[in-house]
Amino acid sequence: MVHYNHKADSSVIYNGEQVKIFATEKKDEVLVVFTNTITAYNKIKRAEFLDKGKLNCAIASKMFEVLENQGVPTHFIKQTGECEMLCRRVDMIQLEVIVRNVIAGSMSHRFAIEEGTRPANVIYELCYNDDDMSDPLINDHHAVALGLVSYDELKTIYALTEKINVVLCEALKKVGIELVDFKIQFGRLGDGTIVLADEVTPDAARLWDLETGNILDKDRFRKDLGHVGDAYREVLQRISTL
Amino acid sequence: MVHYNHKADSSVIYNGEQVKIFATEKKDEVLVVFTNTITAYNKIKRAEFLDKGKLNCAIASKMFEVLENQGVPTHFIKQTGECEMLCRRVDMIQLEVIVRNVIAGSMSHRFAIEEGTRPANVIYELCYNDDDMSDPLINDHHAVALGLVSYDELKTIYALTEKINVVLCEALKKVGIELVDFKIQFGRLGDGTIVLADEVTPDAARLWDLETGNILDKDRFRKDLGHVGDAYREVLQRISTL
Repeated sequence: MVHYNHKADSSVIYNGEQVKIFATEKKDEVLVVFTNTITAYNKIKRAEFLDKGKLNCAIASKMFEVLENQGVPTHFIKQTGECEMLCRRVDMIQLEVIVRNVIAGSMSHRFAIEEGTRPANVIYELCYNDDDMSDPLINDHHAVALGLVSYDELKTIYALTEKINVVLCEALKKVGIELVDFKIQFGRLGDGTIVLADEVTPDAARLWDLETGNILDKDRFRKDLGHVGDAYREVLQRISTL
Repeated sequence: MVHYNHKADSSVIYNGEQVKIFATEKKDEVLVVFTNTITAYNKIKRAEFLDKGKLNCAIASKMFEVLENQGVPTHFIKQTGECEMLCRRVDMIQLEVIVRNVIAGSMSHRFAIEEGTRPANVIYELCYNDDDMSDPLINDHHAVALGLVSYDELKTIYALTEKINVVLCEALKKVGIELVDFKIQFGRLGDGTIVLADEVTPDAARLWDLETGNILDKDRFRKDLGHVGDAYREVLQRISTL
């Protein structure tokens, strides 16, 4: 049972699988609603799991609070329901920014590097957020040439991303979780200020138990490891102590 | 008829299709020999054409001279025969550096942008020079993580590449040619100094007549436009006046 049906008369701004965004009475605020849907492999694999919307909304809210407390500007205003949060309306930048502290997933496949390999440097990647092209890897010059961002905006985006990585790595380490990699997006407020405009949840971040290496993220679903809900619940329980 | 058979007893350092590199009596010098072979589409399409080795050797020598005269360090020492040049021996960096002043080729296909589109910024790309992976697009962070270069070396490489582009654009413009895009490689001398270690020829540079847009490069072969040799001869004739 999703919780946003009472807003059926609100206008939908973004109708995603795992998140839907609705306009509110205030022009510069939106309602982000988390669904129980989980998808993988560019939406080829799909399922519903009980409480997922609730878990992800709580995890995302906590992550936004941790980041805001460390001075990272985000679109988050406050959690307004079990599955919904109020956010500032942004003009989304059509870039996915990926950070890799440990090699896993597509980076592992692309270069035939074993999962779990620790590179000497943090790896940042830009992907062009375009479903028709399956979000291809691009670089800074492509992003500028495609009109997605300016070089100055990219500087801001990389600086924010680096800070987000440091803040989240430290916070998660305190609760015994390693931040392996994550994917985020940024948006522009009305005045052009760039803010984090994407949730950090186990859907788009690889989280491993620091001691056991146990997987606490969507890879449990991708790889059919079972106990998907338990993993998300474990993450929420641990970060709640932060 | 290729011209390097008399060196059959020299040791081959690199046995490429379009260029072969031989050791010399001097440890820090090599002989680069140009063949008459032309290949395209990752070597799927292949042909021999008369005088190609001779034409490319003369074009490459002239390009190296133009660059050296403007202070760009290269591996070139001197042309020593119709199809051969003496060069300094380098440790090759396994990166292909691509510069795009005008959208064409793979960039046009990848993003469905019309060939001939002029982007607002010059586009630089790095590809991992690995035939098994078909030279995939990577970024700076991948290059460092893969151990190919350091961040400092990348700074040098980008600065040199920018200069090479400016020098060649200006020189070619004088003889009515537009430098659409080109691919180069760099190498390290014994002391670590990074130098251009790859020929600029119509094999790996798109050259369009500035007035007519006529194609004067390997695309004539790729696209079966005919008159491949005439185009290479035309390029040599024009740049000889520089």
